[in-house]
Amino acid sequence: MGKDAVHDSAGSGETIDAATPSPDVVRARTVSWEDPTVGAALAKTMTGLEYIRALIDGTVPAPPIVHLMNMTAVSAEVGSVTFTCDPDESAYNPIGTVAGGLVCTLLDSVLGCAVQTTLPKGQAYTSLEIKVSYLRPVHAYTGRLTAVGVVTKPGSRVAFADATVHDSTGKLVATASSTLLVFPV
Amino acid sequence: MGKDAVHDSAGSGETIDAATPSPDVVRARTVSWEDPTVGAALAKTMTGLEYIRALIDGTVPAPPIVHLMNMTAVSAEVGSVTFTCDPDESAYNPIGTVAGGLVCTLLDSVLGCAVQTTLPKGQAYTSLEIKVSYLRPVHAYTGRLTAVGVVTKPGSRVAFADATVHDSTGKLVATASSTLLVFPV
Amino acid sequence: MGKDAVHDSAGSGETIDAATPSPDVVRARTVSWEDPTVGAALAKTMTGLEYIRALIDGTVPAPPIVHLMNMTAVSAEVGSVTFTCDPDESAYNPIGTVAGGLVCTLLDSVLGCAVQTTLPKGQAYTSLEIKVSYLRPVHAYTGRLTAVGVVTKPGSRVAFADATVHDSTGKLVATASSTLLVFPV
Amino acid sequence: MGKDAVHDSAGSGETIDAATPSPDVVRARTVSWEDPTVGAALAKTMTGLEYIRALIDGTVPAPPIVHLMNMTAVSAEVGSVTFTCDPDESAYNPIGTVAGGLVCTLLDSVLGCAVQTTLPKGQAYTSLEIKVSYLRPVHAYTGRLTAVGVVTKPGSRVAFADATVHDSTGKLVATASSTLLVFPV
Repeated sequence: MGKDAVHDSAGSGETIDAATPSPDVVRARTVSWEDPTVGAALAKTMTGLEYIRALIDGTVPAPPIVHLMNMTAVSAEVGSVTFTCDPDESAYNPIGTVAGGLVCTLLDSVLGCAVQTTLPKGQAYTSLEIKVSYLRPVHAYTGRLTAVGVVTKPGSRVAFADATVHDSTGKLVATASSTLLVFPV
Repeated sequence: MGKDAVHDSAGSGETIDAATPSPDVVRARTVSWEDPTVGAALAKTMTGLEYIRALIDGTVPAPPIVHLMNMTAVSAEVGSVTFTCDPDESAYNPIGTVAGGLVCTLLDSVLGCAVQTTLPKGQAYTSLEIKVSYLRPVHAYTGRLTAVGVVTKPGSRVAFADATVHDSTGKLVATASSTLLVFPV
Repeated sequence: MGKDAVHDSAGSGETIDAATPSPDVVRARTVSWEDPTVGAALAKTMTGLEYIRALIDGTVPAPPIVHLMNMTAVSAEVGSVTFTCDPDESAYNPIGTVAGGLVCTLLDSVLGCAVQTTLPKGQAYTSLEIKVSYLRPVHAYTGRLTAVGVVTKPGSRVAFADATVHDSTGKLVATASSTLLVFPV
Repeated sequence: MGKDAVHDSAGSGETIDAATPSPDVVRARTVSWEDPTVGAALAKTMTGLEYIRALIDGTVPAPPIVHLMNMTAVSAEVGSVTFTCDPDESAYNPIGTVAGGLVCTLLDSVLGCAVQTTLPKGQAYTSLEIKVSYLRPVHAYTGRLTAVGVVTKPGSRVAFADATVHDSTGKLVATASSTLLVFPV
């Protein structure tokens, strides 16, 4: 899922150099997505792990945010999931790096999905809070990010999870922890 | 800044109803942006407050993330800034709400810009960490979000800031706190 | 409550000066407390606000931690509480300041008690997480700390609260946010 | 270090049972400590690892908070430290468990000391913020807690660390992350 919906990812992977702007790059992306209510409805018919694996297989439509943020769900076990993300210039902030918000979104996604893998059919979750530590800056040229979310304590009312993001050279760029509410649907 | 760069914001403001998918909505957005190195270079020639006000006036190009996340910088004083954000279906997550990551991005933005308003020319900043509390869910139909970032302690090495997000009905939907590193450019 | 149980608070309020150790100061405190199960049992017979006010009035025995950390509950309304704390040398860390843990304990206490003031009889709470920002160092000579906890969103399953600590000169020394689980007893 | 300074640890290890208060337990502790300025001065003459190891060996006096909170530093490597803590009834809160503040103090201690092990002579640190997740409640009868702090990214200006607390049965009771400022003395 994910990459095929992004038709134009100008600047992806290019080195941003403050001294030499590159005016002829196309700076536009068209993002498309599927109706998010379809996946949300299907989620109620499966265990959490079945749902995350269906997202990976593409048998359930990926949620829109996955396309907007260039994310891809790549694997899931009970209690952990892995996503990748290919940040491009469209996520740049005013200080010349990929916005922390993209890293937060990636971490929030793997934290939530990790908890989801522990839920039986009929249980849902929502994030209560997230804390993200930004260890190193992320640039478009940093390359593919790999995020892993791991449940530190599952629960029927509350669950806790931790997550990490490494860049394409294996450096740890961010860590996060989250508290999530678990409830019957 | 912000909205004019988003050519097609299908689903914006529409009510998402899990029971009745709306198949004829156009689910695509084309986002365009300007070279982020231009603004980053200009930032070095101004005080932080001058830079944020230039972003608001449009005399400095808005950073790409502003367009991707439908954000608009609306006001700035020394120590505080206000942004709005119009979330749409493109930011939906797998559980049928706007992804927490969008709320994080909005909060991270106002926290960073609030600190920037306290910096003299020649000082820059980067976020070290952010914690976000999700008090209420955000939907596309929740309407315009208003985020305010306030510096709780400025500094020449480290600064601290807090932020809030309210929805269009005045409800507090999220709070955040952040630690930021301040350093000479 | 609080201070009367601390028999010997050597070093309290004294200025710690790394250059001139003061060898004749008595460096010992005897802390006494009452059976914590008494207050815990009484809590079940009252609303949260009644319980916190009974702690302030002394009609319910103060919990042990209040004596250990030199804390005093001073006021409570629905949704907010105020505690003071008189840190002394017994809480010093290896880097020559009052341990951050004392500040955390004070903040954790007002955050929890603020939420408790919103609970009807038969509801209890427990803290799920806390984040504390240390804006300024605390010394014994900093004097009395005043902490205020405020509920940002009450709830029947989850509540959120924020808190601040100011020192005796009115400076903001720390801020915190917390997520708390609410459940029937 | 640690335990020998606590003369009377009434209630330590005893099971707290809300239904059957135990009125004949002695509820008092006398805590003594050494001048904290001695250790702080010695810290300037050593690398961080040498200092933490001197604390463990007892050749540097333990800081007061260690005695107040029944903590013991047990081992240190470059980038990680281990402490134990024996909570007793003196740290109980109004809801019948060991106060979260004790867990925060223990975590704050190992996070700070872990960073200290990475510092050369002439570098000092201070905590900027800490986030603690409370996965399971702690009681006096939970027994000895073991906390491990690990540096996730050292630095000459900022360092990041994560920490865990396990109880005597091996259960994970809390996790934490922290951002610390590093500066020359």
